[in-house]
Amino acid sequence: MTLPPRIAKLDHDDPLAAKRLAFDLPDGVVYLDGNSLGALPRTVHARLADVVATEWGGGLIRGWNQHKWIDLPKTVGDRIAPLIGAPKGTVAVADSTSINVFKAVAAALALNPERRVILSDTGNFPTDLYVAQGLAHALGREHQLKLVDPVDVADAVDETTAVLMLTHVDYRTGRLHDMTALTDKAHAAGAVVVWDLAHSAGALPVDIAGVGAEFAVGCGYKYLNGGPGAPAFIYVRRDVQAKVAPFLTGWMGHAKPFAFDLDYRPARGIHRMTVGTPPVLGLVALDEALKIWRGVDIAEVRAKSMALGDLFVKEVEKRCGGLGVELAGPRRAANRGSQVSFRHPEGYAVVQALIAEGVIGDFRAPDIMRFGFAPLYTRYADVYAAAEAMERVLRQDLWRAPKFRMKSKVT
Amino acid sequence: MTLPPRIAKLDHDDPLAAKRLAFDLPDGVVYLDGNSLGALPRTVHARLADVVATEWGGGLIRGWNQHKWIDLPKTVGDRIAPLIGAPKGTVAVADSTSINVFKAVAAALALNPERRVILSDTGNFPTDLYVAQGLAHALGREHQLKLVDPVDVADAVDETTAVLMLTHVDYRTGRLHDMTALTDKAHAAGAVVVWDLAHSAGALPVDIAGVGAEFAVGCGYKYLNGGPGAPAFIYVRRDVQAKVAPFLTGWMGHAKPFAFDLDYRPARGIHRMTVGTPPVLGLVALDEALKIWRGVDIAEVRAKSMALGDLFVKEVEKRCGGLGVELAGPRRAANRGSQVSFRHPEGYAVVQALIAEGVIGDFRAPDIMRFGFAPLYTRYADVYAAAEAMERVLRQDLWRAPKFRMKSKVT
Repeated sequence: MTLPPRIAKLDHDDPLAAKRLAFDLPDGVVYLDGNSLGALPRTVHARLADVVATEWGGGLIRGWNQHKWIDLPKTVGDRIAPLIGAPKGTVAVADSTSINVFKAVAAALALNPERRVILSDTGNFPTDLYVAQGLAHALGREHQLKLVDPVDVADAVDETTAVLMLTHVDYRTGRLHDMTALTDKAHAAGAVVVWDLAHSAGALPVDIAGVGAEFAVGCGYKYLNGGPGAPAFIYVRRDVQAKVAPFLTGWMGHAKPFAFDLDYRPARGIHRMTVGTPPVLGLVALDEALKIWRGVDIAEVRAKSMALGDLFVKEVEKRCGGLGVELAGPRRAANRGSQVSFRHPEGYAVVQALIAEGVIGDFRAPDIMRFGFAPLYTRYADVYAAAEAMERVLRQDLWRAPKFRMKSKVT
Repeated sequence: MTLPPRIAKLDHDDPLAAKRLAFDLPDGVVYLDGNSLGALPRTVHARLADVVATEWGGGLIRGWNQHKWIDLPKTVGDRIAPLIGAPKGTVAVADSTSINVFKAVAAALALNPERRVILSDTGNFPTDLYVAQGLAHALGREHQLKLVDPVDVADAVDETTAVLMLTHVDYRTGRLHDMTALTDKAHAAGAVVVWDLAHSAGALPVDIAGVGAEFAVGCGYKYLNGGPGAPAFIYVRRDVQAKVAPFLTGWMGHAKPFAFDLDYRPARGIHRMTVGTPPVLGLVALDEALKIWRGVDIAEVRAKSMALGDLFVKEVEKRCGGLGVELAGPRRAANRGSQVSFRHPEGYAVVQALIAEGVIGDFRAPDIMRFGFAPLYTRYADVYAAAEAMERVLRQDLWRAPKFRMKSKVT
């Protein structure tokens, strides 16, 4: 295949083009799954090697002080903060996204003790829903998780809503919620708001402090490139921090962890949202990965993301019209996150066939083929090649090979 | 200093002596803090480097299947299982110890819904107590954490006890609880039992299945050498697993995580105790570190541990009698874990002075100097050198230097 000059020019003119050099990407692969697992930043390898050999191996227990491991939840949080419009000291990093959803929703419920309804939508990522269900059930005081269609959220907020818990970008379709409008609506009704920014942080501008939500959480291993299972983050609005009664009350969230008191007293500030001993290896990988964002204008990231998505929609629809694919999310770039999804009745097999062609996207049941654009390393040429591969797979029926139709555990 | 032949002979005759070669220990350091952070196993460096470069960098999202990242909580759990007398499929690894204490105590309470008392002792590690306090408070149904002196636990168990939550080895004094007797007492009273094996796993033989406790948790970064903030483990007795209603209901604990159902259904077996995306970097470091245990007889580990402790007590008391140190834990090796603690009114400064002399132990408020023995790499010569250094520090008043008396954040 040859790349049309118009596509080559897009990459040539891309102000973010050089950022791709900060990543270690395999040859021969078009990677459109950075929304699931971000690519490897080149310097993570050396940083981790140094932490293992020098800080752990050589420093042993002294690393907690000498290498400031103990501060990592906050220092890494402060690196994430500007990417989501949060001031310093409002973001902590540790534990998984699921655990952080639990912390946020539990704390939000405690701030609204007279109400019983956690409101969310059917487009939310399932783990958020499961965590809220488990919490509501275990509290045993008639708490409930109420789910509505994403388009009905605004109308469903009412004076019974204790907590509005939503994910900004729909993990399947890429559909964007209007954070400001929904937060305002919830606040007007007296609800506390929790945003999951898993598919937002590092993908598009977020102004969480400006939006005014009390809580947010997000993922370290998608657009932030912290590596598989990287620790997640939690944001708590500054003026709310002192009012938060943490549910998960571990020693790292204690006012004086090394006094070894018998009674829990919450730490000041965002520290109270931390629980156990910080996961140092995961934190340093994420810390190193976040250095890539120095000097990056997130508005440029968003502009490129929208252009990549628009190019993909246009090329796929032009090439694959009548071949069974159908756009699954918003057509307008302004209404979607940094991904484009298409439906196909045999979406699983089509995605497997694309992977065999060197184009990595992913599949989400029942029929969604998902393609993410990480503007720091995704090129217009990648998007073009992916559309070409999609046409090849569909037109030549490559996806019908039996080996592509057996489902594996993770896709 | 010269090493007496009797000490050299102990190391020469040590059946575990060669295991020290499996660790990368810095020169000139006597490390007696493996009970706080285990030393670096030599092969972790290369394993992590390969996971980063090949599995993450090269494999990208495919690593979840191709490199079986998704199975790590169970595969690493199965490596830990024999060290605590647990059958395969009863141990999962993910999240911090604090989070796993929460999972275990919450599940234990749910198994005993008519009762309200979590019984523990004042020698338990504070994070366990904080987690139980937070849980009891948040449940809001008159649950309470009741604390008694460690020697009074057996008498305090009664028909109001919902959960008996204890740490096997006292983190300060090394005092061992009688797991069998206390578990039997609790079961006879109708209580559910949670053991924290943080200072037991890898330090001494544990037969958790034989003991019959419903739950246990433990730490990956002490005697298991998984690295700073390594993920922790949770054990659930096989016959109890199907009855457990997890409180932290994340997608990894779902029966079908990749079906993306809206409703939570717990996975079969130990998987239901997992929550969010597995922390792969931390898990592979721990996985690699656990390979060291192949072929190790834990009875030999215990025998050496007891001998190291006895030697340290004898040498310190012989050399430092009248210099203000006093044995803080059990004198009988059979009654303590793999550590020896001494009290000194200026224990913090003494520990700092020892560190300056190249002997790393640690301090626990208010006056405990703690020395841990990791029989896979601690030599009799190390213990002898530590006792010599203690004598030097006390006899020459080295600890009185002002620089040793300022408390740092972590010790």
